[in-house]
Formats: sequence, structure tokens, C-alpha cells
Amino acid sequence: MSMQPRDPDYRRKVIDSFTRQSFMHTLGARLLSVEPGACEIELPFRDDLCQQHGFVHGGVTGTLADNAAGYAAFSLMPADSMPLTVEYKISLLAPARGQRFVGRGHVEKAGRTLSTVRAEVLAFDGPGEPVTIALALVTIMCLQGRSDTVASGPPRERA
Amino acid sequence: MSMQPRDPDYRRKVIDSFTRQSFMHTLGARLLSVEPGACEIELPFRDDLCQQHGFVHGGVTGTLADNAAGYAAFSLMPADSMPLTVEYKISLLAPARGQRFVGRGHVEKAGRTLSTVRAEVLAFDGPGEPVTIALALVTIMCLQGRSDTVASGPPRERA
Amino acid sequence: MSMQPRDPDYRRKVIDSFTRQSFMHTLGARLLSVEPGACEIELPFRDDLCQQHGFVHGGVTGTLADNAAGYAAFSLMPADSMPLTVEYKISLLAPARGQRFVGRGHVEKAGRTLSTVRAEVLAFDGPGEPVTIALALVTIMCLQGRSDTVASGPPRERA
Amino acid sequence: MSMQPRDPDYRRKVIDSFTRQSFMHTLGARLLSVEPGACEIELPFRDDLCQQHGFVHGGVTGTLADNAAGYAAFSLMPADSMPLTVEYKISLLAPARGQRFVGRGHVEKAGRTLSTVRAEVLAFDGPGEPVTIALALVTIMCLQGRSDTVASGPPRERA
Repeated sequence: MSMQPRDPDYRRKVIDSFTRQSFMHTLGARLLSVEPGACEIELPFRDDLCQQHGFVHGGVTGTLADNAAGYAAFSLMPADSMPLTVEYKISLLAPARGQRFVGRGHVEKAGRTLSTVRAEVLAFDGPGEPVTIALALVTIMCLQGRSDTVASGPPRERA
Repeated sequence: MSMQPRDPDYRRKVIDSFTRQSFMHTLGARLLSVEPGACEIELPFRDDLCQQHGFVHGGVTGTLADNAAGYAAFSLMPADSMPLTVEYKISLLAPARGQRFVGRGHVEKAGRTLSTVRAEVLAFDGPGEPVTIALALVTIMCLQGRSDTVASGPPRERA
Repeated sequence: MSMQPRDPDYRRKVIDSFTRQSFMHTLGARLLSVEPGACEIELPFRDDLCQQHGFVHGGVTGTLADNAAGYAAFSLMPADSMPLTVEYKISLLAPARGQRFVGRGHVEKAGRTLSTVRAEVLAFDGPGEPVTIALALVTIMCLQGRSDTVASGPPRERA
Repeated sequence: MSMQPRDPDYRRKVIDSFTRQSFMHTLGARLLSVEPGACEIELPFRDDLCQQHGFVHGGVTGTLADNAAGYAAFSLMPADSMPLTVEYKISLLAPARGQRFVGRGHVEKAGRTLSTVRAEVLAFDGPGEPVTIALALVTIMCLQGRSDTVASGPPRERA
């Protein structure tokens, strides 16, 4: 499968979009890497992001998977388009225990309208190997003719 | 299907557990209602919970669905058990536009070990009818013989 | 949500399409009902459709859910379009035990390009109430400008 | 992760179980390989397994993914246990065009009670490389203390 970005400036547009997501700032997440069809987002542990047992909340894990998948797909979209998450399914394999977490998205199929992206979330807890704590499959839609950066925002309806 | 809670004190244990989720405080979410097999969680809009277009982030929407589903299932579990999210799938139907959002979980099948829960997320934007912005199906596991409130936390592995 | 079919001849086109699905003949399934945004497919038990314990195979259950969802969405699509299943998630709640089974699809959101459909599969086993054996969420894509009935078939690629 | 089968006779039990699935005979599917934590099932094209455009039906594709996943998980389960599919999510990437199809399951996490399995379905169409037509994530439950081969079958309820 071709992983050629249709927008040569793909990296800048992903960084711009990520930077405008206020929720990433609230979580303390940062963009770790962007390549054509791939993206990594990192989140250090913080004790205000937890569920009732002191591990990172499953909703945070899902956010890392969804967002890494969305930006992996966005990296391959043409200029003047924006990504929308249509749906995702996530399996939580182990508690989110660790000092930091990395969500990774990898495009499996980049269609004109829809992309299917695999995502996984890894937990790093000390010097050993990271643990895969979640696996996801994500469907991302490409809305063409609308810049991701315009102030007017997306349509009121999913297309 | 029977929606008899096996723990008469089901409401208190759900409230206790929710209160200990630091991520709910960080989001500004609150428990709106708990009934046997059902739960609602409310989140007011805040501009630090958004994606790049100023709407609430899909990861927040997923968190509301997952958490409402988990506590809907927990309400039916026996004392000395804890809920674990095994997996969820969420379809995002419309942008999360509104002043406040409500995640609703409703148990469809409560097994001894696994529960299947439907969830939905509604957006309230002004005086009109709310808009359904997400639908989810969630699998919750009941870990027996472990109190949800003990300090020692869950097992290192999903059972 | 509007459940107005954009093709007044929606019922005929669903029946035509279903009739051309050779796999439905192989399974012995039949179209039970079609309404705007809704569809039911019925399957009598047959002992050559089973898994290792003599119940209907989960893949058959998934087929009923997927197909009922697809035709529910197709009923709302304009003429000269065809439905494609993008993805589905199905939770199997109970063994498929019964004399006959009904898959029901109900469109929750009909967009111009994508529809989100809830589906369920019921088992009828004797005179009592049917049992819900599966719940599903299905994403269906509308491919415009291509008749569902042309011999040339769909594109080689999902759009 | 350990991929040690707890039942040294894992291969025989998978073959026995597969052979008793009448639906596999109806489809013309055969077990291609079984390894600890992995399974492949092959299906030759037949024109009575198709949707309305002459390609293999999505329900057949889903069946291959679900079944390969279930037997991949079963290969790691102890003797006197049986596998149950809890749920699966499948993304259909391309039409099922080809002379033969292979479903592959690969266990990602084998827990005592639940296993999470990745599955994919490949289409072989001529001498070239196969095309990945579907990706799936599947949750399989291990029911202990019940042989997969006893005539009495599984419980009336999912545990």
C-alpha cells in the first residue's frame, strides 16, 4: 500500500492541529513523532488522570489510541481536508500502570474517503520492555474542501 | 432480564468508586444518576476539553460512554467485586457541540463474569432536544473476591 | 431524525439486491420486512449451519446482523447508489439456540456518505418470548453514482 | 507473552472441534494450520457464497475472522475447557475478490478467562501478493470445566 503523503507539508499540519487541541494540553500529552501513515503521542503519568485504583483511566487510554490513529490518517490526506473519527473499538489488555504511555497509530488502508488505522497503547514502567495495554481499530473520514485550520469549524453534521 | 442488584448498597459503592476517579474531577464530570443496571454521567462544556475545532474531544466522549457503561454494570455486581472494562466500540455520530453532555449506560446482559452494556452520549445545546452524538457497546468484566475500594488495587493482569 | 427514503422505489431495490445475494439462498434466509431505515431478515434453524455444539454458528449470527443493517441503510439511500459495509462490531450475548432467528437493523444516523445502524439478532425457541442473542453497531457507506444492480460491480477499492 | 499451550494435545482438540462445525462443511472451509496461539482457515471461492455483486459475502469474511480467532485462542486453553466468542469487530477494507481466502488469528493476550485475538482475512487472486480484505479484533472466553466435545453442550447462558 502506498504511504505517500498527498500534502508535502503533512508534518506541519499535524503539528498545528495537535497544538490546537486544548484537551492534549489538559492531559499533558505531546506529539512524539509523525511519519507518512504513522503517529505517536506520549503521555506522562499524572495522578489526576486516574480511575479508582490509581491507574490511568481507560478513557485516557482510548484518547491516546483515537488521536494517534486520527493523526496517522491525517498525515496522508490532501491539503484542504480535515480528519473526523467515525468510530473506534479498543480492547484494554492490562491496567494502565506505568510512568509514561505511548499511543501509536499505523494506517492499514488509506482510501479517498475512509482510512482504517490500527492503534496500540504501550505502558513504560521502569527500565524493562513496555507492556501493550490496549489495541484498537479506528475508522477515520477525510472531509475534503475544508481546511483543518479554518475558524469556521467542521459541518454541523457528519457528512 | 433481571435487573436486581445483588448488593443492596449498590448506589453507595458506585458513588464511592466514581468519587475516587481523579480523572472525573479533572474533567469536571459528575454522577447524575445510578439505578440498577443504569447510570448517567454529566459533563459541562469547558474549552480546555476540546479538539482542534473547539468541540469536545472524541476521547472525552468515549470516556463518558465507557464510564457510564462501567458503573451501570457495577450497580448489578455483588459486594466484594470490581468492574473492569474489557473493550468498547464507539460510533461518533455528530460533533460534540453543546453546553453540556450526558453519557448513559444501560446493561443489556448481566452475566456472572461479563456484562454487555449499551451506552450513548447526548449533547444539550440550548433549549431544544438533545442530540445523540455517540453510540457504544461495552463489555465489562466482574472481578469477584476483590473489593473495588481496597488500597491494594487490581491484579497486575486482566484475569 | 428524518427517515424519509430518497428513492420512492426503496422496497423494490432492497428486494432485488437481497435476491441476488447467493449466500442468503445458501443459508435459507429470507427478507421478512423492509421499512424506511429498518429491515428484518429471518433464518430458520438448519443443522448444517452450526458450530461444534449444535447451535447456529456465530458467523451466521454476524451475517444476519450485518445484512439487516446494510439493507436498513440502503432503504434510505438515493437511486443509483449502493451500500458497502465499512465495519461492524457484534456482541454475542447467548448461544444461538432456537427454531428460527431474526436479524433486525435500525438506522440511527443516516448521513450523506455514512450511516450508523444498530442491529440485533433474536432467537425464537418455542412459544415464549424471543431471546436477544446478539447486539451490533454497523457502519454502512453509500457509494453514489453506481447502481447496485449493474453487472460491472463495485470499484476494486473501497472509496 | 507466553504462547505455551496448556494442553499438549492442543492440535488434536482444535481439529476435532473444527470438524464438528457443520457450517465449515457448508462453506467448504478447511483448517489450514494450527500453532500455539495461531490458526489459519482457508476458503475457496464459490459462487453460492456471494453478495449482490458476485464477491464473497461480508458475513463469510467475518466468519473466517471469528473462527480463526477462536481456534487461535482455543489452542492455548487447558484441557476440559471450551472457547466462546464474546464479541468481535471487523473492518472490511476491500471487496472479497479472489479465488481463495485465508482467515488468520493471532493471540495478542491470553488471560485465564479472556483472550484478545487479532485476525485478518487475505484474498488470493492470481499469482500476485494476497490482498488484506479485513482486519478484526476478537474477544474469546475460556469456559473451564466443560469439555468442548461433550454432547451436553455449553451452558444456556454465557457465564
